[in-house]
Amino acid sequence: MKAATFIEPGKMVITEAPKPTIEKKTDAVIRIIRACVCGSDLWWYRGLSKRESGSLVGHEAIGVVESVGEAVTDIKAGDFVIVPFTHGCGHCAACLAGFDGDCTNQEGGGNGGYQGEFLRYTNANWGLVKIPGQPADYSDEMLNNLLTLSDVMATGYHAAVSAEVKPGDTVVVMGDGAVGLCGVIGAKLLGAEQIIAMSRHEDRQKLALEFGATDIVAERGDEAVAKVMALTDNAGANAVLECVGTEQSVATAVAVAGAGAVIGRVGIPQKAEMNTNVLFRKNIGLRGGIAAVTTHDKARLLDAVLKGEINPGKVFTQRFNLDDIQAAYEAMDQRQAIKSLLVISD
Amino acid sequence: MKAATFIEPGKMVITEAPKPTIEKKTDAVIRIIRACVCGSDLWWYRGLSKRESGSLVGHEAIGVVESVGEAVTDIKAGDFVIVPFTHGCGHCAACLAGFDGDCTNQEGGGNGGYQGEFLRYTNANWGLVKIPGQPADYSDEMLNNLLTLSDVMATGYHAAVSAEVKPGDTVVVMGDGAVGLCGVIGAKLLGAEQIIAMSRHEDRQKLALEFGATDIVAERGDEAVAKVMALTDNAGANAVLECVGTEQSVATAVAVAGAGAVIGRVGIPQKAEMNTNVLFRKNIGLRGGIAAVTTHDKARLLDAVLKGEINPGKVFTQRFNLDDIQAAYEAMDQRQAIKSLLVISD
Repeated sequence: MKAATFIEPGKMVITEAPKPTIEKKTDAVIRIIRACVCGSDLWWYRGLSKRESGSLVGHEAIGVVESVGEAVTDIKAGDFVIVPFTHGCGHCAACLAGFDGDCTNQEGGGNGGYQGEFLRYTNANWGLVKIPGQPADYSDEMLNNLLTLSDVMATGYHAAVSAEVKPGDTVVVMGDGAVGLCGVIGAKLLGAEQIIAMSRHEDRQKLALEFGATDIVAERGDEAVAKVMALTDNAGANAVLECVGTEQSVATAVAVAGAGAVIGRVGIPQKAEMNTNVLFRKNIGLRGGIAAVTTHDKARLLDAVLKGEINPGKVFTQRFNLDDIQAAYEAMDQRQAIKSLLVISD
Repeated sequence: MKAATFIEPGKMVITEAPKPTIEKKTDAVIRIIRACVCGSDLWWYRGLSKRESGSLVGHEAIGVVESVGEAVTDIKAGDFVIVPFTHGCGHCAACLAGFDGDCTNQEGGGNGGYQGEFLRYTNANWGLVKIPGQPADYSDEMLNNLLTLSDVMATGYHAAVSAEVKPGDTVVVMGDGAVGLCGVIGAKLLGAEQIIAMSRHEDRQKLALEFGATDIVAERGDEAVAKVMALTDNAGANAVLECVGTEQSVATAVAVAGAGAVIGRVGIPQKAEMNTNVLFRKNIGLRGGIAAVTTHDKARLLDAVLKGEINPGKVFTQRFNLDDIQAAYEAMDQRQAIKSLLVISD
């Protein structure tokens, strides 16, 4: 089968790889329909993190189940499914608490290779999310919406849930990448009244407004804080979605939070050490982590997509065939695309 | 008037101080009935923090209003009141959000002198909490319960609220001082099913069990973590109340938290810098800060005390007259008393 393969920073190729098979009774093999490139893929693409040369890549997809192991009973061959980057078992304490991104039964090696024709998915019984019908029943736009439920929309929503967004809230969203934009959708879905998107790129500002942002702040640092304070009558936000992870972004998130506000973090923290006394002084909460993809999809997001309530697929501003994998990465790397879609099969 | 006065570390005396008067139209002057010594008073008593020699001390009391400024309309002379250590204005964004400990209109100098015969209380209109009837209507036990609502019980409850304790939860309480013990009461009041109190002193273990703890863990560090894991079927707690503030206590709080748990901090953090990536990895939340005393009292605690639902006054294991102020501090300092009560007047 064809699979996107990492060679070295800045260089992606399509290689011929062995088609995966069922290795454990909890596995499923999926024929991939659509996949995409994640902002976090750029870390190793840019050489900022290490990755083995020759490794298969990608962790977001939708597809059709080809075969399942004998312990997989919730999903069967022929089912159309969301393929989350998480692999929740559904029965450990973390999954039961609604945090399948922290599943204690996750298996190593299961996360990679989504940007290819076939994938072995571990913990398939509970982890996969069944989509009604078949791919051919859906428009391209709807397939794009469904694809976002494998990571980016679930992650943006996780930021909003972690920030405990309530109806009527004033929410600040740090980050205008695809996750931040999906955070805007998540905040609106949870009833936020005022959504302030921190964005300095015109195409992303436009999409943020379309997704429900009420205000745009293009400034950074102290100027951004002053602007948010002016927009909130000096009260600060009730909830802050931190979808970047840099030290500056986290500092700004704290500075714009009002007393008792909660910061929901999904941006992988760049710096571990943080002065938490600034949180204590204003009763600011800090929550978040790896998204609970299967939990959020089953509880709310799949339904919201199928009903047309949300249209997160708009984050895919460029579309590529699998063979053009290098161009798909370059478009993201050079910020020509907000997010690159990969069409694998129909 | 008589007032407890700090001379130097280890030395408290009663001095004759001028009786306070109304200085601002938002003030009230209170005749103090009961006051007490706080664990945080021991910081300067032990010389661990600085305090000016000759300064009046104390920040917990109940009393009767002597006079009020012209802007004070909710409370009048003769009213029996809880005198919170917080001074919420009731109308800033922080107070409106339910975090009066972070009131942006708090006035300097208003916090101190509660261990004396009279007190000038700032922001009296909203900050003071009216108790029905007069002191003579209540038993000594009930006066003790009411006194805890000026700080310690509200602070323990704040830890539980900050940790988002829900019915059925498994809760770990770090710290067996008066605040931790009130945290046990708070967790139970919010419906916790399993309450694990970390305590190594027999008298405090006994009180924790009386207040609703279901399990006692006397160990510290790694051994404490192992014991909690064994008690929770390896799942960790749903909520952790951090009522100590030391680095070791915070580290243990994180280690016993299950995926998605929230740590509610009220122990003033000893160390500002904290590795927050350990939180991110397990979606552990960190909330808490200065208690919202007036908010909690009015919303829930005064009612719970008056109905006999909770008996936090049991934390006062020794009773002193104001003249015996040195003995009251020594009893706390030497851990002979869990908390020292000061009888000022009737």
